[in-house]
Amino acid sequence: MNQTIETILNHRSVRKFTEQALTNDQIRLIVESAQSASTSSFIQAYSIIGVKDKEKKRKLAELAGNQSYVENNGHLFIFCADLYRHTVAAEIEGKDISESIESTEKFMVSLIDAALAAQNAAIAAESMGLGICYIGGIRNNLEEVTKLLKTPDYVIPLFAIVVGYPDQQTEKKPRAPFHHVYHEEEYEQDLGKYKEELEQYNNEISAYYNERTAGKRTDTWTSQMVGMLGNKSRLYMKDFVTKKKLDLK
Amino acid sequence: MNQTIETILNHRSVRKFTEQALTNDQIRLIVESAQSASTSSFIQAYSIIGVKDKEKKRKLAELAGNQSYVENNGHLFIFCADLYRHTVAAEIEGKDISESIESTEKFMVSLIDAALAAQNAAIAAESMGLGICYIGGIRNNLEEVTKLLKTPDYVIPLFAIVVGYPDQQTEKKPRAPFHHVYHEEEYEQDLGKYKEELEQYNNEISAYYNERTAGKRTDTWTSQMVGMLGNKSRLYMKDFVTKKKLDLK
Repeated sequence: MNQTIETILNHRSVRKFTEQALTNDQIRLIVESAQSASTSSFIQAYSIIGVKDKEKKRKLAELAGNQSYVENNGHLFIFCADLYRHTVAAEIEGKDISESIESTEKFMVSLIDAALAAQNAAIAAESMGLGICYIGGIRNNLEEVTKLLKTPDYVIPLFAIVVGYPDQQTEKKPRAPFHHVYHEEEYEQDLGKYKEELEQYNNEISAYYNERTAGKRTDTWTSQMVGMLGNKSRLYMKDFVTKKKLDLK
Repeated sequence: MNQTIETILNHRSVRKFTEQALTNDQIRLIVESAQSASTSSFIQAYSIIGVKDKEKKRKLAELAGNQSYVENNGHLFIFCADLYRHTVAAEIEGKDISESIESTEKFMVSLIDAALAAQNAAIAAESMGLGICYIGGIRNNLEEVTKLLKTPDYVIPLFAIVVGYPDQQTEKKPRAPFHHVYHEEEYEQDLGKYKEELEQYNNEISAYYNERTAGKRTDTWTSQMVGMLGNKSRLYMKDFVTKKKLDLK
């Protein structure tokens, strides 16, 4: 197994960092790694906003649900879906491309592009011995986040990645069974088998928590998911996205 | 610079492969790499469908716009946004979570999750000396693709990655300028500077094509984008996605 695959398989989220900030060289290498990812028809439909300012980080932490590691880390990168760049390109070329830009298809492209870039950044950082954690919490209140970051229409901050020198040891959580996630030739048609795989995974996750918490926690994956999804969080998103003129048609 | 970052920065799409198929061990390692990616609240909202069958690959190639490398490669992975798994979890738990599942927020989560997993797969494959190419073309006709792959509601095939032993040398295309993609503290507010960066990038891209084609092609990035986005492709997507019960509210 090569070093890259070792880095990838060894991933775990880190939520406590030393005070050491990333150098500008490290930041540049991480962003250049992000930029090297594949991009749909060369569209490059994302932007990255780097935050060093302590007060801005504190505000973001508050907006993201008071997670201390959003404030305390070596650097904070915010990944945005970005089709604003393309409206400026259209202005330069004197053409109207709003129908494409505002389509669900291009909204999807911008999300996928941003995520591909982000994962390159994450792997690059981890290969340098840094720890990372994705922060979806910035989507709790995008109205305030976009004000803070001054993003224009056609831009949506999707998530942050906090990066830094790890100040904790964390464990890898067992992923869903291989044959449950990976289907051969077509999507698994046997619902009985599909459910059986989920039950088997439930047992595995339950044992994992049981061991880690000395029996205090034994919840399953399906109960976690149903609890989390029962919360109906961020249901304002559809209105927000269309207000930013994306996913309209 | 470590091996991982070298692999990442060295990425270029490969569109011609030898006939050598990936081994099952290689496929498993690539899928396990995908599974190691971060996932929003542990939701794991994606599935991967691997296609070996020659006839199925041929049909997919046809649907994706007759790209020969969709048919001829070492393996084809299709990455799907997948919230079907969570409806089955809800059934197991006897709860109704449809309002969350059908929200724009969770649609976004499923796209981001699938893309993070995919980019891990891509980097893992490249680190093994394999070449890759993302295939967005499967979104040309998702009605037919979902029939072929027998995906249920709440599942959307997003893109494929074809993988194999490279049978061509390709060049890296210059990405947008660093300071255009990477903003500090807030989104670039100076439209003049923003446009200037795009013009500078236009010159770079134009010179790149000029050199590669001995002067036959000199188009700029903004003209490419406006041409591509002027095509209004895949405008059926909004209807398709809502028919699959995603991005509804």
